[in-house]
Amino acid sequence: MATAGKVIKCKAAVAWEPNKPLVIEEIEVDPPQANEVRIKLVATAVCHSDLHFLLEFAPEKNFPIILGHEAAGIVESVGPGVTDFQPGDKVIPFFVPQCRECRFCKNPNTNHCEKAVLAVDRDSLQHSRFTSKGKKLLQFVGTSTFSEYTVVKEIAVAKIDPAAPLDKVCLLGCGISTGYGAAVNTAKVQPDSTCAVFGLGAVGLAAVMGCKAAGAKRIIAVDIKPEKFEKAKVFGATDFVNPKDHSKPISEVLSEMTNGGVDYSLECTGNVEVMSSALESCVKGWGVSVIVSVTMKDSFTASPLQLIGGRTWKGSLFGGFKGRDGIPEMVKAYMDKKVKLDEFITHNMTLDQVNDAIELMKQCKCIRTVLSVSPQ
Amino acid sequence: MATAGKVIKCKAAVAWEPNKPLVIEEIEVDPPQANEVRIKLVATAVCHSDLHFLLEFAPEKNFPIILGHEAAGIVESVGPGVTDFQPGDKVIPFFVPQCRECRFCKNPNTNHCEKAVLAVDRDSLQHSRFTSKGKKLLQFVGTSTFSEYTVVKEIAVAKIDPAAPLDKVCLLGCGISTGYGAAVNTAKVQPDSTCAVFGLGAVGLAAVMGCKAAGAKRIIAVDIKPEKFEKAKVFGATDFVNPKDHSKPISEVLSEMTNGGVDYSLECTGNVEVMSSALESCVKGWGVSVIVSVTMKDSFTASPLQLIGGRTWKGSLFGGFKGRDGIPEMVKAYMDKKVKLDEFITHNMTLDQVNDAIELMKQCKCIRTVLSVSPQ
Repeated sequence: MATAGKVIKCKAAVAWEPNKPLVIEEIEVDPPQANEVRIKLVATAVCHSDLHFLLEFAPEKNFPIILGHEAAGIVESVGPGVTDFQPGDKVIPFFVPQCRECRFCKNPNTNHCEKAVLAVDRDSLQHSRFTSKGKKLLQFVGTSTFSEYTVVKEIAVAKIDPAAPLDKVCLLGCGISTGYGAAVNTAKVQPDSTCAVFGLGAVGLAAVMGCKAAGAKRIIAVDIKPEKFEKAKVFGATDFVNPKDHSKPISEVLSEMTNGGVDYSLECTGNVEVMSSALESCVKGWGVSVIVSVTMKDSFTASPLQLIGGRTWKGSLFGGFKGRDGIPEMVKAYMDKKVKLDEFITHNMTLDQVNDAIELMKQCKCIRTVLSVSPQ
Repeated sequence: MATAGKVIKCKAAVAWEPNKPLVIEEIEVDPPQANEVRIKLVATAVCHSDLHFLLEFAPEKNFPIILGHEAAGIVESVGPGVTDFQPGDKVIPFFVPQCRECRFCKNPNTNHCEKAVLAVDRDSLQHSRFTSKGKKLLQFVGTSTFSEYTVVKEIAVAKIDPAAPLDKVCLLGCGISTGYGAAVNTAKVQPDSTCAVFGLGAVGLAAVMGCKAAGAKRIIAVDIKPEKFEKAKVFGATDFVNPKDHSKPISEVLSEMTNGGVDYSLECTGNVEVMSSALESCVKGWGVSVIVSVTMKDSFTASPLQLIGGRTWKGSLFGGFKGRDGIPEMVKAYMDKKVKLDEFITHNMTLDQVNDAIELMKQCKCIRTVLSVSPQ
């Protein structure tokens, strides 16, 4: 492309400081360096982790930054040493790299990678290819997709089916893969089992979808907002519980519904008290509870007897998917109509409207808002 | 036997109230009822759970009681319907029954049983066959072995090799099976892995032995009492860490020793802070931490990121052994010299000296004290 090797001037939503609206700015995006890929983003969604970073976790030192990490785009150019990608490839960048060389990547039981930067790598300011108004902008979890262009390490980019609609499959860059994989890869939900999913945001709904895909016979959707139950049904939920309808602990309610507790519980709220409830909702002996939504603010607590009683507590990062392998498979599953994506999208906007999209999510008024960034 | 069908008058150590010495009393032991076995105890050891119940947990309502649950003996008589046992059989009673009929017993992944009474079944006072001075005495975890005779449900009795020395294999009724099985059955330690065992009491030392049997190449023994390290070496420990020698958190010390953390950690102290440290000491991605020692006093805490980071938290009850199947196998392993038992026994006493044995354990001056109850 004509832009290869050159600095690109383009538009991005910049978070100059915590707890303030993002500002649409003109930024400069440097060419990709060795083993990097410059991507023209087509669509990006807003995920709760963007808000968490902007509004809750938010250490001053990690600003200014370009947020956004759930997106899809087209390769604009590649840096030296990149052989797997070429301009024009349709891709999804992701936040847990897969270097394929470290002891984590070589272990089939984990999707962690020694090269992961799961927040902001302050020591590697040189990794950011963004500037605006003469200031270096930080990169968010190795991605930064609230921008017309970004530069990502090739180990954090998945090449996908060229026929895939980017304004849909962008969701596979985080939330949907996270929830779906937590059920399928981390909990390893078994056929005919009973599951409970706590929290029916996009991640929770995707977890419901994962439980169904894995063959669960009963999927109990738990949320304090009953208006979400209709949507949960679409993804496969069979039972619906609003903790506000009960005076007893939700774990007791679920225990009574299921003769002692569920086989699998998936915690998708990021609330540490719910994490404990989700564990307690599992049947003794073999129940598995998976923490899917992250919080950096609090610690969870539990009685040792919960675990001695035979329960297992796990966590899931990006649904346990090794991205370069897993994302193209999820895209194929969508194209084959085995995985739903369209049903998660409640709003479509443009990058200019990113603050409106953030506001919708803050108020829990959306499942997913997809922002159009560039023409597909 | 001449005593079959009759009340037996014999000696037992009775805990009349919490936090008081046990009293050697004459008691009456009723004949076994349907599906029960009356056992003449030959040897019983003192386990920390006896102390926990007597001194720490100790609700008044659960007294008077006969403690003791780690023992071996000889069947004196059987109740109606018992076909698996006959007088003269050498047996080990145990505290997690195996009814072989419930959904837990039928599931190969758990040793829980719907019939378990993991403390004192207040609603089933009629299950106790003990009286003393006209008062009904409660039964402890379905066993009560600080007595010359006890009556146990047949589903909580394992028939063992008649050649087995009861004053040694009595240890398989709780502590040694608990620690060993936590490594082998619950953590499922893999060959060539790196393990850490926190706490080097009998359970911890047995966990070390389990790690070695499973083929671990490095077993790090952690205790604040360095005098225990010599014994840990006997069971297979390769490295020794005293947290008091370090100013940094023990998880950091272990992480530095092992390039990021151990594959398996086993918590054998019953201290909730150590439980959190044991989790944090695991390598991200696939580390498994198992809580082995129980406490009912406190809750543990941890950051969700510990689990999201790919660690798994589990608990182990009686080492995951289904008792009727597992205990005879462990006895065989001892007879075949594949499992050590003699090395755990630091003191031999008689039932009359049970308070001295309890005092030794309170002061951490023993590994296991075996009390001789009746001639073998």
